[in-house]
Amino acid sequence: MSKTEIASVSGLRSPVRAGIIGATGYAGGELARLLLGHPLVKVEALTSQSHAGQAYGDVFENFRHTDLICETENPEELAERCDVLFLALPHGLASQKVTAELLSKVKVIDFGADFRLADAAVYEQWYKTAHHGREVLREAVYGLCELYRERIKSARLAANPGCYTTCAILCLYPLVAEGVVDPDSLIVDAMSGVSGAGRGLDLGTHFDEADGNVKAYKVGTHRHTPEIEQALSQAAGKPVTISFTPHMVPMNRGILATCYGSLTASFSEDGLRDIYRQYYGNEFFIRLTKPGVLPETKWVKGSNFCDIGLAVDSRTGRVIVVGALDNLVKGAAGQAVQNMNLMFGLDEKMGLEGCPVFPG
Amino acid sequence: MSKTEIASVSGLRSPVRAGIIGATGYAGGELARLLLGHPLVKVEALTSQSHAGQAYGDVFENFRHTDLICETENPEELAERCDVLFLALPHGLASQKVTAELLSKVKVIDFGADFRLADAAVYEQWYKTAHHGREVLREAVYGLCELYRERIKSARLAANPGCYTTCAILCLYPLVAEGVVDPDSLIVDAMSGVSGAGRGLDLGTHFDEADGNVKAYKVGTHRHTPEIEQALSQAAGKPVTISFTPHMVPMNRGILATCYGSLTASFSEDGLRDIYRQYYGNEFFIRLTKPGVLPETKWVKGSNFCDIGLAVDSRTGRVIVVGALDNLVKGAAGQAVQNMNLMFGLDEKMGLEGCPVFPG
Amino acid sequence: MSKTEIASVSGLRSPVRAGIIGATGYAGGELARLLLGHPLVKVEALTSQSHAGQAYGDVFENFRHTDLICETENPEELAERCDVLFLALPHGLASQKVTAELLSKVKVIDFGADFRLADAAVYEQWYKTAHHGREVLREAVYGLCELYRERIKSARLAANPGCYTTCAILCLYPLVAEGVVDPDSLIVDAMSGVSGAGRGLDLGTHFDEADGNVKAYKVGTHRHTPEIEQALSQAAGKPVTISFTPHMVPMNRGILATCYGSLTASFSEDGLRDIYRQYYGNEFFIRLTKPGVLPETKWVKGSNFCDIGLAVDSRTGRVIVVGALDNLVKGAAGQAVQNMNLMFGLDEKMGLEGCPVFPG
Amino acid sequence: MSKTEIASVSGLRSPVRAGIIGATGYAGGELARLLLGHPLVKVEALTSQSHAGQAYGDVFENFRHTDLICETENPEELAERCDVLFLALPHGLASQKVTAELLSKVKVIDFGADFRLADAAVYEQWYKTAHHGREVLREAVYGLCELYRERIKSARLAANPGCYTTCAILCLYPLVAEGVVDPDSLIVDAMSGVSGAGRGLDLGTHFDEADGNVKAYKVGTHRHTPEIEQALSQAAGKPVTISFTPHMVPMNRGILATCYGSLTASFSEDGLRDIYRQYYGNEFFIRLTKPGVLPETKWVKGSNFCDIGLAVDSRTGRVIVVGALDNLVKGAAGQAVQNMNLMFGLDEKMGLEGCPVFPG
Repeated sequence: MSKTEIASVSGLRSPVRAGIIGATGYAGGELARLLLGHPLVKVEALTSQSHAGQAYGDVFENFRHTDLICETENPEELAERCDVLFLALPHGLASQKVTAELLSKVKVIDFGADFRLADAAVYEQWYKTAHHGREVLREAVYGLCELYRERIKSARLAANPGCYTTCAILCLYPLVAEGVVDPDSLIVDAMSGVSGAGRGLDLGTHFDEADGNVKAYKVGTHRHTPEIEQALSQAAGKPVTISFTPHMVPMNRGILATCYGSLTASFSEDGLRDIYRQYYGNEFFIRLTKPGVLPETKWVKGSNFCDIGLAVDSRTGRVIVVGALDNLVKGAAGQAVQNMNLMFGLDEKMGLEGCPVFPG
Repeated sequence: MSKTEIASVSGLRSPVRAGIIGATGYAGGELARLLLGHPLVKVEALTSQSHAGQAYGDVFENFRHTDLICETENPEELAERCDVLFLALPHGLASQKVTAELLSKVKVIDFGADFRLADAAVYEQWYKTAHHGREVLREAVYGLCELYRERIKSARLAANPGCYTTCAILCLYPLVAEGVVDPDSLIVDAMSGVSGAGRGLDLGTHFDEADGNVKAYKVGTHRHTPEIEQALSQAAGKPVTISFTPHMVPMNRGILATCYGSLTASFSEDGLRDIYRQYYGNEFFIRLTKPGVLPETKWVKGSNFCDIGLAVDSRTGRVIVVGALDNLVKGAAGQAVQNMNLMFGLDEKMGLEGCPVFPG
Repeated sequence: MSKTEIASVSGLRSPVRAGIIGATGYAGGELARLLLGHPLVKVEALTSQSHAGQAYGDVFENFRHTDLICETENPEELAERCDVLFLALPHGLASQKVTAELLSKVKVIDFGADFRLADAAVYEQWYKTAHHGREVLREAVYGLCELYRERIKSARLAANPGCYTTCAILCLYPLVAEGVVDPDSLIVDAMSGVSGAGRGLDLGTHFDEADGNVKAYKVGTHRHTPEIEQALSQAAGKPVTISFTPHMVPMNRGILATCYGSLTASFSEDGLRDIYRQYYGNEFFIRLTKPGVLPETKWVKGSNFCDIGLAVDSRTGRVIVVGALDNLVKGAAGQAVQNMNLMFGLDEKMGLEGCPVFPG
Repeated sequence: MSKTEIASVSGLRSPVRAGIIGATGYAGGELARLLLGHPLVKVEALTSQSHAGQAYGDVFENFRHTDLICETENPEELAERCDVLFLALPHGLASQKVTAELLSKVKVIDFGADFRLADAAVYEQWYKTAHHGREVLREAVYGLCELYRERIKSARLAANPGCYTTCAILCLYPLVAEGVVDPDSLIVDAMSGVSGAGRGLDLGTHFDEADGNVKAYKVGTHRHTPEIEQALSQAAGKPVTISFTPHMVPMNRGILATCYGSLTASFSEDGLRDIYRQYYGNEFFIRLTKPGVLPETKWVKGSNFCDIGLAVDSRTGRVIVVGALDNLVKGAAGQAVQNMNLMFGLDEKMGLEGCPVFPG
């Protein structure tokens, strides 16, 4: 069946017409892959500043069999042709392009940071640049689907969360919300595959420098920090400050977050698992590991799953929660599609049910 | 829509019920992934000698979200419940299990070597073991879909080709069939990702020994050699003997075959490309690269594509044809699904249209 | 010059005769490499339970050009032929083999855990086995050279520290000893290359499972924990309990330890650097990174260096100390040679001055 | 002992003073590492166009413990301070810098291609640029030590061979020289680690693009081709044309060359091994593998060894010779040191005897 036929059978007039602005980065490429496989989406347009006019299959040869062409970026014109625009741009640009007028014509899902922080002052402090879309910011919804599902359903503008942030928040939210960990004790020690650094050339991501190497970077200063703190502060009902240390590890994809918190009382591992089941027991994309098993990035690669496991260290009174996801899927393009599904009233899982690719 | 609904819309009574015998190797796992994503297949059963009774999601945690359970192997019983059986077993077993009676009840697609070589004597020479299913062998069809499509459509038993073989044959068949290369000059120098060696433990596939390392192995003695020769002999219309050297390279997935042949006359690169277009121009799963571009394994990872490119070396009068595929997809599970689609009259591409996963 | 000539010029009667018991693991192989390159050591014997009688160059083909042969293990006999024995054995064995009588004949450097923990009860608690050498344990010296140099010089038995432990202790000792971090707040989050798991076959270290994957393991239960606590307790002058989380990352070699501590007052980064300079300013093998630079495992690979850097997170009042070393060199064989140099009155750096191998 | 003392004991007035021009590429870094470990060499100067004035330990942090500083490039001035200059520059520059006058003051070992091809016209054809040093070219010696040792000893200018070339020539020279293979049948199919592409940034060597990927490149056009042909033509006593296909594989270091030749008669594997023993039996840096064993890059990593093994394929009448070396050592910096040792009358092995680093 063609997508049009499926749409018809599904009671839709036509498939959702999607535009990708900034399609030639890794997240854009992954989004294109997912949307091409989505039963009810038509990729209407791809844009690229640097590759306009080129075949998409020449930029990313995995798309060699498609007839997609990179277009020049023109949000207004795209808004006419599309039902939804995905923006995958460097920070600071989306807040200029996404206007109230644009939102009156098309729904927008932004991959960047411009609409993630509700407080523009916090944005300006961490990103060292002025925020140019404070008006629109007010209606933006933080697109962490499992936590903000209802608001997302009616949103015109979703701020797709960061990769580290999605993992860290999903790991810690239940414990903070239930008050079983001291919010002042939280440490997120996380690792990312190299694709998190993007397709831009840099000595640190040159093969010979990154292969066989691990390093911490941006210690105490990484811009995902305020995003994690924003969600955990909501969970705690008071401001929360955390330590966050990202590391780069020699693999293409994957986020592993190892999160530490001091327990406020003597909780058993089973008791904590109950809390997670209560929050996530019905969530398709969150898989809680069995006792004694901890998440590994290989088991989520290529999929929209976030696996979560935990261990209680009774010697130190700490709980260690470990989460794993694919930074380009649940940490970027997959969650964007999940947001789109919610915003268009589709089955939230549609186009995202593929099993992780193993070995990968 | 559920698969049953899709089947109904598609005019089928019900989805194809599939059984996987030997589901806990890498090829079996990849097959399960593809079949779970296939719109018209229901995974009816998975079997495993070593893991019977275990949750499949405990063996391969990428399936943690499913409720699949490894069953004990019982082909006769499975034949009753299934429309098709996929066998992923060590060589020598399938030829005992696949009987005429079994084939009267269920279609079979065998991943192993037992039914690939039409001449049982050749099998016995290379595999150093007796062939126990000569009768059934006669009706087996070699499941290289692009070359033997028509015969596959009506087959009850398809011998799914090897990974190296699929790549090498697709690369060389057109040139040999058209007589533009000297069949005595053919050399296939190929590389495989480590998953080709399977999930069984071995010092050579221990991470520290395989990482950062390349090696040739089984030089002149690899068992995919007679399979390649069988197809190329058909192409040449006379017996062809080739040199085949496999190498192991430090990556999970992928086959790259670099094939050498001496041109029988002074052919241009364009002329040779025309031949490939003639053979494969309408093949969805074969992507011919543009002039100046050669295939790379990253561009086919996770997909059923086989990319083919070539260069003419006029100094030496040789053509060098390079092919790339994913050893677990087009080299195993994907081609098996393609065979199944053909054998059941489904769209050949169904369940296999996913774009390659990049970066991966 | 031959080693005998160098010994003569150096005023020694002859090179130090070394025996390696358990030479066919990764640490044993690395030790052989370092000792063969040591100007004043002769590798007198290598032993192996599993490979006795085999050429060492058949077990590890990097030694193909040598004439070393694996001998049967016989400590008493070796004690007659050697000046020093290195033991690289599974835990529980060294404490049986190293007797007072043996020590009267030969110096011993043990790679295992049997003599690392001064309190046999702690050993028995973490290793779940009885300690069979309590008498000898009393004279064992913990061989972390930078901290216990003077005691090592006169030792007959040195317990070579673990890989994670060396890194974690060197990172945290100065801060704990100077009282600038709260000992109850210490968290060591560390990563190891796969060689840390040894040459024994295991699904977790199978290439396809380890490549492209990261995971935490033995959370709260790893046996290096009491070793780190022992040294930090000495630094603190009171019992210290830490959280330690090891991770496996897809590279051959390297330890990266990211260590967290809450500052007891408002210290500047510069002030903390001064403390490290005071402790390690004259240590050849400890390289403090420049402000703004953090250690990476690639910069120490193949060498005996431990690089240390730090960042102060004033938002949370924590210091994050990052250390990097090569688990098989400073974390095993290199430190063992450093211990040997100290025990034999040689220049501590001898045979260990090689620059890290980059890219590696 | 200091290097000066060793020089004195060795009967030299002082250590050899070495200058490295172009020290901030991978080959330059490896050379610095080897020279710092050489008992009779003093690194007098390092130069870098792009990093002049910077600490070498800031460019390559593996040298963080040294006090080396990158100087501005000034060959004439360096010629006064040094006994030997190593040039690691893009092609086309050395032929301008190395003048007769320079050679009258200092010996030169050039890593580039400018002096490798005796026939300047061949150089100009493959490198598409004029050769500016034809006069000096006449006295250049091709620095493949095992084959041209005597000429190198008295040379003032050695052209250090390429990485692929060293491996391919060492593999094929004996068979061609002895007439046991048909020179028209030679095919060299080779793989290189990514460091062969240098430290310059490029999308093809970006981690996410190179990891998990293999590809052929410059098929039939790679500039190492005429270099291999030059040596094999000398061996054959007549012009030889070969097919050479390089591949990039996802590892840092290493060359593996798989070489094919048609046997001119029915030779046994043993007979061919005898030929290799005759040519290389006394060569320290060439290790012939045992029957049934083929070289792997991991067994030579970090060392100056070239391992060679072979198999006879009697079905096709071909011999397959496999060679392995470390592209930055025997394929670049190590062979340069070997040349230096020869040119200064030192033990050829000095500074190069280190065992391969495994696992690496």
